[in-house]
Amino acid sequence: MARLNLPLQDFYAVIPAGGIGSRLWPLSRAEAPKFLHDLTGSGSSLLRDTFDRLAPLSGDQRIMVVTGRAHRAAVEEQIGELADHNIVLESEPRDSSAAIALAAAILNKREPGVIIGSFAADHVIKGARFFNMAVAEAVEAARAGFIVTIGIVPTEPAIGFGYIHATTDAEIDGAPTALVVDNFVEKPDLATAEKYVASGDYLWNAGMFIAQASVLLDELKKTQPELVDGVLALAEVWDDHAKRGPLVDKIWPKLTKIALDYSVAEPAAAAGRMVVIPGEFDWDDVGDFASIAKLHSSGHKSDLAILGEDARVLADASSGIVITDTGRTIALVGVKDIVVVDTGDALLVTTTANAQKVKSVVDALRLAGRDDVL
Amino acid sequence: MARLNLPLQDFYAVIPAGGIGSRLWPLSRAEAPKFLHDLTGSGSSLLRDTFDRLAPLSGDQRIMVVTGRAHRAAVEEQIGELADHNIVLESEPRDSSAAIALAAAILNKREPGVIIGSFAADHVIKGARFFNMAVAEAVEAARAGFIVTIGIVPTEPAIGFGYIHATTDAEIDGAPTALVVDNFVEKPDLATAEKYVASGDYLWNAGMFIAQASVLLDELKKTQPELVDGVLALAEVWDDHAKRGPLVDKIWPKLTKIALDYSVAEPAAAAGRMVVIPGEFDWDDVGDFASIAKLHSSGHKSDLAILGEDARVLADASSGIVITDTGRTIALVGVKDIVVVDTGDALLVTTTANAQKVKSVVDALRLAGRDDVL
Repeated sequence: MARLNLPLQDFYAVIPAGGIGSRLWPLSRAEAPKFLHDLTGSGSSLLRDTFDRLAPLSGDQRIMVVTGRAHRAAVEEQIGELADHNIVLESEPRDSSAAIALAAAILNKREPGVIIGSFAADHVIKGARFFNMAVAEAVEAARAGFIVTIGIVPTEPAIGFGYIHATTDAEIDGAPTALVVDNFVEKPDLATAEKYVASGDYLWNAGMFIAQASVLLDELKKTQPELVDGVLALAEVWDDHAKRGPLVDKIWPKLTKIALDYSVAEPAAAAGRMVVIPGEFDWDDVGDFASIAKLHSSGHKSDLAILGEDARVLADASSGIVITDTGRTIALVGVKDIVVVDTGDALLVTTTANAQKVKSVVDALRLAGRDDVL
Repeated sequence: MARLNLPLQDFYAVIPAGGIGSRLWPLSRAEAPKFLHDLTGSGSSLLRDTFDRLAPLSGDQRIMVVTGRAHRAAVEEQIGELADHNIVLESEPRDSSAAIALAAAILNKREPGVIIGSFAADHVIKGARFFNMAVAEAVEAARAGFIVTIGIVPTEPAIGFGYIHATTDAEIDGAPTALVVDNFVEKPDLATAEKYVASGDYLWNAGMFIAQASVLLDELKKTQPELVDGVLALAEVWDDHAKRGPLVDKIWPKLTKIALDYSVAEPAAAAGRMVVIPGEFDWDDVGDFASIAKLHSSGHKSDLAILGEDARVLADASSGIVITDTGRTIALVGVKDIVVVDTGDALLVTTTANAQKVKSVVDALRLAGRDDVL
């Protein structure tokens, strides 16, 4: 394997730092979303880890963060390197198509021909070398005109992820492992997931998108023309601070809320313009507490993961995960695969098997008007 | 059944309010022991409920509470009726023989021939009429010279209680249901408990003792002569406040710590001087959180009991019990037979099946010097 030539030419990284992570309530809140937490025990937030992972690939001054206005201070505190022109503030969340398309439009105006790569702010990746190799190939495939994603080679029949079906070599110069994406499939049941993994024809969808900014906008225009018109108009005045504000207030709230998966990835795949680079690195979207427990266990069922400074946990015949920031003494007696999340104003008790259902609590609290704990 | 003539002649009730209730940590603490809590949702503490239950039988000025010095204020707050001469303060806990014998000695000096009945401060009883009938019979059996207990007719093969084996009518005037106690047996395993219940020859040991104060002291003297000498010496000066203090400091710390079950009940039974009145009322020692959960459920396995003012609990597919005094939002997702006890400085998560093991946490905390949360 050839040594990578870093930073990658024409490459600009984009980090949409949006979602709250409802399945991680009450740890993740509107005020303190998942990407601002250290869920790996690395000592830094997922956002900071993401920035540090991308900096060698793009250069640390070629990373743009798209986030909510409420998180500006927290994001800047996490990333001291972030120049003003590299932070895009949303007045309200409009989902990933709007966020990434706006970044694409701004960057393409500043630097025509730029290749952007969008990477979630709150995923965990181990194995920088394999990640770098995959992104390098993805950038070459993007340079060849494709919309590109990086799909993770599955290590188990996970039911919490979407899958990418890909069987045919794309035959792209500089991207030898690229495969044509046949189609994307939603989270499967266990039997289906087992078939997928056994076949060797499926990869996990990690929500990474790499493309020339102009190609991405052209592809999006086919399904969401008004959205593209909107972000292009915003990009036109973006670097003129006097004009930006009023136009954002006018256009942004009207943009269609839709995930890039539906507006770009699936249509591009159907049209044969989407390729995937298989990634051989460890990846997790840290989507629920079971996932965090797994990150922190050494694989033993009997493990109890404990997260939190000054955690005082006494456990007898118990396993699972305890996350606490209250300093309280926490005793577990005979509870297996338990999830205890202990915060100042809210406490969650569930099991790793029920971790995905935590979202239902958030929905119920929202319905009940309990925004104070959301 | 004849109408009871209340209050019962010569009867004085004694409430030893001592034990902390380690199995109810972190609800029950050294500072706030079990008997000071409202565990039934009645709106009053177990101690107050006990007082109210006994008052019709003895008269509300003929109930003596024996408790630790630290609890004086709390006890007096619970029982406004309690005259100074009806509260006996222990400088340190010396177990039930010392506590009850001291009360017996004091009361016998004040009122020779008095019949005392000792009833735990932290048990739950439903069915006043049957309780009153049992105590009335017990007092008559005590008047006839026996040491008397009230045994609960078992409703299930409980393994958390001791049992009383009794098969022979005692033939005592005024106590038509009294049986001679053959022997006491410790908490059995399930198979043994099932045999006990099926035989009809066993009753639950509820730790109630009724006897003439002088008879009780005579019986105790046979096994613990120094203990009796000690409490008689204390009783001699008890109502002389100037002399009481120094003598308590001298004698009390040296008294043998032993439960009345071992010092009086078992030896008296072996000698044929112990009788039992079967009680047909609902009784529970509320010994652990499973017991509290049961008290609050309507018998359905799917029930979730919630205790605590301002409790904000969201539960999805969960059962068991939540006790909280923090006002925090508590969410349970898919946890069955769970026990969550949420206090300001400590949190317990266990299951009803493991409720008896909570004591191990308290032991571990004590070993670790964590008296701050005990």
